[in-house]
Amino acid sequence: MRLFAYRDATASRALGVSVDGINFHEMAVLAPDLPQETEELLGTDGALARLAELLAVAPSGRPIAEVTLLPFLERPNALWALALNFKTHIAETGLTTSLDYPHLFLRTAASYVGSGEPILAPPENVARAFDYEGELGVVIGKPGRHIPVERALDHVAGYTIVNEGSVREYQMHNRQFGLGKNFEASGSYGPWMVTADEFGDPTRHSIETRLNGIVRQRSGLDDLLVGVAETVAYLSQGYHLRPGDMIAMGTPGALPPAEDDAEGRDLSRQFGPFPTPGLVHMRPGDLAEVEISGIGTLSNPVIADQPATYRIG
Amino acid sequence: MRLFAYRDATASRALGVSVDGINFHEMAVLAPDLPQETEELLGTDGALARLAELLAVAPSGRPIAEVTLLPFLERPNALWALALNFKTHIAETGLTTSLDYPHLFLRTAASYVGSGEPILAPPENVARAFDYEGELGVVIGKPGRHIPVERALDHVAGYTIVNEGSVREYQMHNRQFGLGKNFEASGSYGPWMVTADEFGDPTRHSIETRLNGIVRQRSGLDDLLVGVAETVAYLSQGYHLRPGDMIAMGTPGALPPAEDDAEGRDLSRQFGPFPTPGLVHMRPGDLAEVEISGIGTLSNPVIADQPATYRIG
Repeated sequence: MRLFAYRDATASRALGVSVDGINFHEMAVLAPDLPQETEELLGTDGALARLAELLAVAPSGRPIAEVTLLPFLERPNALWALALNFKTHIAETGLTTSLDYPHLFLRTAASYVGSGEPILAPPENVARAFDYEGELGVVIGKPGRHIPVERALDHVAGYTIVNEGSVREYQMHNRQFGLGKNFEASGSYGPWMVTADEFGDPTRHSIETRLNGIVRQRSGLDDLLVGVAETVAYLSQGYHLRPGDMIAMGTPGALPPAEDDAEGRDLSRQFGPFPTPGLVHMRPGDLAEVEISGIGTLSNPVIADQPATYRIG
Repeated sequence: MRLFAYRDATASRALGVSVDGINFHEMAVLAPDLPQETEELLGTDGALARLAELLAVAPSGRPIAEVTLLPFLERPNALWALALNFKTHIAETGLTTSLDYPHLFLRTAASYVGSGEPILAPPENVARAFDYEGELGVVIGKPGRHIPVERALDHVAGYTIVNEGSVREYQMHNRQFGLGKNFEASGSYGPWMVTADEFGDPTRHSIETRLNGIVRQRSGLDDLLVGVAETVAYLSQGYHLRPGDMIAMGTPGALPPAEDDAEGRDLSRQFGPFPTPGLVHMRPGDLAEVEISGIGTLSNPVIADQPATYRIG
């Protein structure tokens, strides 16, 4: 089952559920007795199972293509992300990470848009190394503390796709990534959350990131340095995981460019600290897509952010 | 004027306003026409001025001592914090920071409680280097992007006090501070926000942190490496500042211990990466207080977090 948020001509925000990712039903009509806010829904015992039952006997719904998708979380307490969690990305950046602990930082809700919504590229006089990062997103359902690794996946309600868009110059301004991972509308997640029972074992899936149709990242999700269960267990040692918390699991390295890929082979068009063959920055007019098997495709046009009328630093 | 949130026998959450920090009026009674949520109130043009007018002609109110204070922000988009923003703290940690850019990271709302509420110390088998960090908190009012330094303070609605409680072992698990700055209820802010017009120039104020009545940090706020206006301007280059965003401005170093301060002189009782004379960790049973001139005192008992039934790493 797929859960998502959308707007259309009649509603500024509603929740939708879908079996196939093609047609959907409005949550408020299908299950008016259930909470109509994602975090509360995910925190309600048995709510997803009840929805699946209702959906199984519902008539064919309305096309998802008719509506505009939104980020499906409303006001999550924590949007965690992992840095340097693929060997291929560690190699291309030359950065170091602990092999014992996940490399965690936070993003704000304002740094993400939904699938189909535009991602904002910074003006060139602010930053030019604006990079896609295709990632698996883990969405927490059941809350908890001190969760053993072997029970950690019980706390996962579902999975989504994240483009953890990053502004490299700002990320390297100081030792904490800070603003570089939190530019306004610089990333995205969606198109929906696929429930954990349907997605199954994350390590059996694969991820692919395309810019303007050209594959720039591709990896199995069995290649994570710290896995989903280990990350959930680690966080729960200090933090009470809440329904609707999301964890972006880190991005793989760039694919080597093909022979005829002039852009991917031209390091002179790269800015920022990690010039890498096959890496191409996101720029206004681009289309960024991240696909994960078993979930679908997160797709965002890239447009120019408002001009910088003022600059420091 | 002071703005705060509280609960009492009749309300689970209400806003209060006070001239003197001793007696107060309930916002919903004093100004039922104004938004009754902090972020929305701070984002409403002229709302604080209107409140001050109403308060000036109101009869003497009810004692603040009768109610339980809460964090005055409801669901802020961003709780920024600065690392290593005092030379004295840089010296004691031996860590490095850029001299050109603020050293920014994020905390979640769940990592903070209000004044008077208990701060949670991790169980000893999870972490022992649980440290106070007394800091000035800057609360954003007017939203904005690309804000010049010379207009940045126009976007500040007021100031508060932060105890940016930190779990050093976890902070050093990897290069991003991650979970170490985000343990559940590990920090606090309050007791209230003092409006910017009343607080005036932050650099003319001073901060003092006490543990069990012994002064452990004391500094002028003119000693910040990156100032309030510079930080607001920097953030606004990539991020759209929102009403109710908070920025914790960094903590000063430890005061040298007095001759008769056995605890402050005993480095064998210190854990974590930065053993420093005069540094004393927070432990269950302690009272942590941070005072800033012109605001008041943020005061929190320290109690033991729930036992760790499970540990990794």
